[in-house]
Amino acid sequence: MAMVPLIDENAASPTARAVFDDIKASRNTDYINNFWKVLANDPKTLRRTWESLKEVMAPGALDARTKELIYLAVSISNGCAYCTASHGVAAKRLGMTPEMFGELIAVVAMANETNRLADGYRVPVDERFETLF
Amino acid sequence: MAMVPLIDENAASPTARAVFDDIKASRNTDYINNFWKVLANDPKTLRRTWESLKEVMAPGALDARTKELIYLAVSISNGCAYCTASHGVAAKRLGMTPEMFGELIAVVAMANETNRLADGYRVPVDERFETLF
Amino acid sequence: MAMVPLIDENAASPTARAVFDDIKASRNTDYINNFWKVLANDPKTLRRTWESLKEVMAPGALDARTKELIYLAVSISNGCAYCTASHGVAAKRLGMTPEMFGELIAVVAMANETNRLADGYRVPVDERFETLF
Amino acid sequence: MAMVPLIDENAASPTARAVFDDIKASRNTDYINNFWKVLANDPKTLRRTWESLKEVMAPGALDARTKELIYLAVSISNGCAYCTASHGVAAKRLGMTPEMFGELIAVVAMANETNRLADGYRVPVDERFETLF
Amino acid sequence: MAMVPLIDENAASPTARAVFDDIKASRNTDYINNFWKVLANDPKTLRRTWESLKEVMAPGALDARTKELIYLAVSISNGCAYCTASHGVAAKRLGMTPEMFGELIAVVAMANETNRLADGYRVPVDERFETLF
Amino acid sequence: MAMVPLIDENAASPTARAVFDDIKASRNTDYINNFWKVLANDPKTLRRTWESLKEVMAPGALDARTKELIYLAVSISNGCAYCTASHGVAAKRLGMTPEMFGELIAVVAMANETNRLADGYRVPVDERFETLF
Repeated sequence: MAMVPLIDENAASPTARAVFDDIKASRNTDYINNFWKVLANDPKTLRRTWESLKEVMAPGALDARTKELIYLAVSISNGCAYCTASHGVAAKRLGMTPEMFGELIAVVAMANETNRLADGYRVPVDERFETLF
Repeated sequence: MAMVPLIDENAASPTARAVFDDIKASRNTDYINNFWKVLANDPKTLRRTWESLKEVMAPGALDARTKELIYLAVSISNGCAYCTASHGVAAKRLGMTPEMFGELIAVVAMANETNRLADGYRVPVDERFETLF
Repeated sequence: MAMVPLIDENAASPTARAVFDDIKASRNTDYINNFWKVLANDPKTLRRTWESLKEVMAPGALDARTKELIYLAVSISNGCAYCTASHGVAAKRLGMTPEMFGELIAVVAMANETNRLADGYRVPVDERFETLF
Repeated sequence: MAMVPLIDENAASPTARAVFDDIKASRNTDYINNFWKVLANDPKTLRRTWESLKEVMAPGALDARTKELIYLAVSISNGCAYCTASHGVAAKRLGMTPEMFGELIAVVAMANETNRLADGYRVPVDERFETLF
Repeated sequence: MAMVPLIDENAASPTARAVFDDIKASRNTDYINNFWKVLANDPKTLRRTWESLKEVMAPGALDARTKELIYLAVSISNGCAYCTASHGVAAKRLGMTPEMFGELIAVVAMANETNRLADGYRVPVDERFETLF
Repeated sequence: MAMVPLIDENAASPTARAVFDDIKASRNTDYINNFWKVLANDPKTLRRTWESLKEVMAPGALDARTKELIYLAVSISNGCAYCTASHGVAAKRLGMTPEMFGELIAVVAMANETNRLADGYRVPVDERFETLF
């Protein structure tokens, strides 16, 4: 159970309902998932989060699928079960196959391994890596 | 300074030297970065890490650049300065532009934000998200 | 299910029972929550944890509610479901309203976002921020 | 050194410059700190982050100082050195004394300790804690 | 439920089945736990993970039990419920008593506490601690 | 530089000085490291932390060296540079060799890898692992 009630469309405030409508239109679906129903308890955070997500996840220099794979990778690395489940589905909708999912998890796990090797030995950054761009 | 000495090619054990040679050949470079020089203190871990990395990062269902972007994203999310710096350079070598880097960090940051919204409200996983494949 | 049995008052060792009694007296309640029942498997840790908690959470320069809000914020950020649930209730008892809870989560989430922006870009600390007091 | 150049006001794009101006006006200062100068490499993220921060940190059910203390607490818990340094200064500006800072860190540290006790023993959430509001 | 199906021995690919056989032989058991059944969806990762685990966990300068205790400690600290449960059992099989388990969790929790004290105050590393070996 | 001044013995409050004296006597040394000098800004936290550390790290069911190895492992996993450096030295004083250190980091890194495999696939806990003792 959530810490707060899940608010569906009938119970939503006008601000929350407008966000729900935009989610449904943008995603071409009738389904509002639990994350948004919970955020509807705090309409300003619901709106800000949705608007930010739309801006951040819009195709740009990176395509939509690559962005979704990165989102999923970070959620896995953070051990967030809800986000792993929901962004897994989002990535699948954008073309992630079981093979791609398996490779993604393998990279996430490997990065976590070498991150601790680097931290544990306190490896100094190579001079040539100090600046990227 | 690192917790242990950086071991260069002249001081490396035969096992470590063989790994160094393979790194140089695989990457078509003469430069061995600090991470590997530190791991040379523990030749078995050096070899296992390098062999694993080659297998995990080889192009498969995901291309090499996408894998490197995921690696970089996780390293940023974990706050690993060394890995952020070194995998940033690796991703750039595979074509990551400043615009792509900016979008990648924005996705990593946004995922960290919504991960905590989901955890903080203890949002229950939607039934339809329970299984992915 | 927990890794170890939940030990209630009848089964508790004298050390554990004394802590249970102090918890009930300090909180003016008859309810011992699962956290303490589990810690009763290790009476020294039970006692040390309870004594430390009393000292740390006592009103001082910060009032009790502010301390509880900080405790809750950290628990959310760490993704600790038990602590999020139990310290949520504790904060509510000290006057946290649904609006305050919503704002708290929003701050926690935002901090997690900008923490990764700062780490990802490896932003150097401004000279004027180096020392605080 | 940062991964990207620090962009000062003279080099900033129109979007970035508008954000810089708003930061200076809102904070009644002439100083733009490194975080914003780095974000200026990605003007959309600069603008979105600043607008979000203004909305999230505005006094509401929680006052500005309590919000800043929570922000600082999360940054410490995440081990983000830049955010710890910069939000420490921000909290001090809003009245945080050395005593308050010491108590804040003590709460953050204690929460991290008990979070792991709860996770390590896999303590089940008490039925009465399942829902908060 | 897992993100992917649990693959038992009858459904496993030849590569996965060979790993399963080696797990059963090495551990002198007929039981394959869920972790390996899930990894069987990605036979290469299954094999690499099992081979790495055998190499890393083999008795060396540290004995098998000490290694397992460290593994369990890290899993608890990371809040990984599955790994805490499974490596708890593995450590018990190697002689971990309830008293040892209690002390282990106490050390993990204490380390998490002081890690944040050190990070929060941004304590500079003592010159004499800069290099270890 | 630290967020607060390092307080040496001459400037310490009576409470802090008493702790310093106990540290020196318990460790048979004249050296007070930076961690304690920083905590001296908050004498109650200094005392509580030191007393807790003495209790937690005292030999019990686990010997002193095993406890120190676990402490170091967690500090590495958390990416705490100060604690990695200082507890590395503490472990060395208790007999940790370079080989043991290398194996410890390898276990920490491996655990971080498999923790994410388990979280990413959302592996359900095997029924037989649900309870440990």
